Amino acid sequence: MNLLLLEADQLRGTRAVLSATQTRHARDVLRVVPGQDLRVGMLDGPRGVGRVLQAGDSVELECTFEPHLPPIPDIDLLLALPRPKVMRRLWAQLAALGVGHIILTNAARVERNYFDTHVLEPALYRPLLVEGLQQAQDTRLPRVSIHRRFRPLVEDELDALSPSDLRCAAHPSTDATPIGGAWTPGVARALLAVGPEGGWDDFELRLLKDRGFSVVSLGPRTLRADTACVALIAALRAGRDA
Amino acid sequence: MNLLLLEADQLRGTRAVLSATQTRHARDVLRVVPGQDLRVGMLDGPRGVGRVLQAGDSVELECTFEPHLPPIPDIDLLLALPRPKVMRRLWAQLAALGVGHIILTNAARVERNYFDTHVLEPALYRPLLVEGLQQAQDTRLPRVSIHRRFRPLVEDELDALSPSDLRCAAHPSTDATPIGGAWTPGVARALLAVGPEGGWDDFELRLLKDRGFSVVSLGPRTLRADTACVALIAALRAGRDA
Repeated sequence: MNLLLLEADQLRGTRAVLSATQTRHARDVLRVVPGQDLRVGMLDGPRGVGRVLQAGDSVELECTFEPHLPPIPDIDLLLALPRPKVMRRLWAQLAALGVGHIILTNAARVERNYFDTHVLEPALYRPLLVEGLQQAQDTRLPRVSIHRRFRPLVEDELDALSPSDLRCAAHPSTDATPIGGAWTPGVARALLAVGPEGGWDDFELRLLKDRGFSVVSLGPRTLRADTACVALIAALRAGRDA
Repeated sequence: MNLLLLEADQLRGTRAVLSATQTRHARDVLRVVPGQDLRVGMLDGPRGVGRVLQAGDSVELECTFEPHLPPIPDIDLLLALPRPKVMRRLWAQLAALGVGHIILTNAARVERNYFDTHVLEPALYRPLLVEGLQQAQDTRLPRVSIHRRFRPLVEDELDALSPSDLRCAAHPSTDATPIGGAWTPGVARALLAVGPEGGWDDFELRLLKDRGFSVVSLGPRTLRADTACVALIAALRAGRDA
């Protein structure tokens, strides 16, 4: 944990009381002592420093925060729901990489029963997102929305969900643009669509193209969904920064 | 499994007999029938097509191979050994992403006992590498070498292990080059050094710089070692392709 994220209700003025889990971590892993400074952040708020006031059965911090909030990550992800085991692995990694909005969708090659899993329950994924933020020292909790119908999502809802000026759909295709070249100067926010392991079907790909998505690719290698997601986000951002 | 990888001793002329594991997969997942074509590859050899001759207790294929071998991936990885759980997750992902030579090393922030794990035994990691290759439809098994002493490795052995014309070391540093811009035109082969989660120490970084490594970065976010490896390889390659 590189940053200790605090929820609003943990704060009284500038004093924070750690939760039971945080207390255990502070005591057993960080071995905090009074006077020690910890990197802290308010969930969806600013980062700062928490000075340990008391470190016994409960740990209390006196916090000072930076004046500015970290920016909301400038990539949103439209992801065809992978199988639960893979989705479970992805939550923390997506938060750590920095995604503004995680939009999960059905697709022809997604099995319907993937939607009936507790991996999609906030009680499961929120702590994993927080874990990823703490790893990356970010405070901006990704928004999450889950959509069982692809067409109404793409046709009617996507513009409101992700006000992006670059839209690209990853697809294993020989005439696709390399994703590293997708982020052109002037783009402020990107929406990246990542399909199922077998790829989008023709209907889905046409619909995405009709809604302004260009087809991008990482190359000829077929990757597992979680590896592909991490690689695509990193490659898209590398093009922005290069 | 997107490609069935065959070992040399499975082939008699152009006929291949599947192993017990491959037979189970072919029968229970692919549900093969005689006459069906499967994508196959020879480990470290060419890709091709295997026509099912017989699909009973054993599965036999008549194979035809492409004339050319897939290229050896043009990125080598010098990786400070992560903790065993993370390394275990990485093997298949590295093979799937495409790494020519995986060079594992000690570093100041690597715990010594990480080297005494069965995760570093070929009997464990070779099947994971093969799994990654089959996922990515590649046949080129990454070379693996393990080095317990950083300095002699970097000073004396690295030139022979990785004849690369681009060397970059990932490090969380504000004056590092964005990794997406590291691959300049004319580079044929890159060696990417990825440190422990806490980063290389000053001595290691100086040694790497002395041996021609430039410092590159993915940005300010601290990632888990496995996420970082995947992201760095993807970002480096994105810069090559953009």
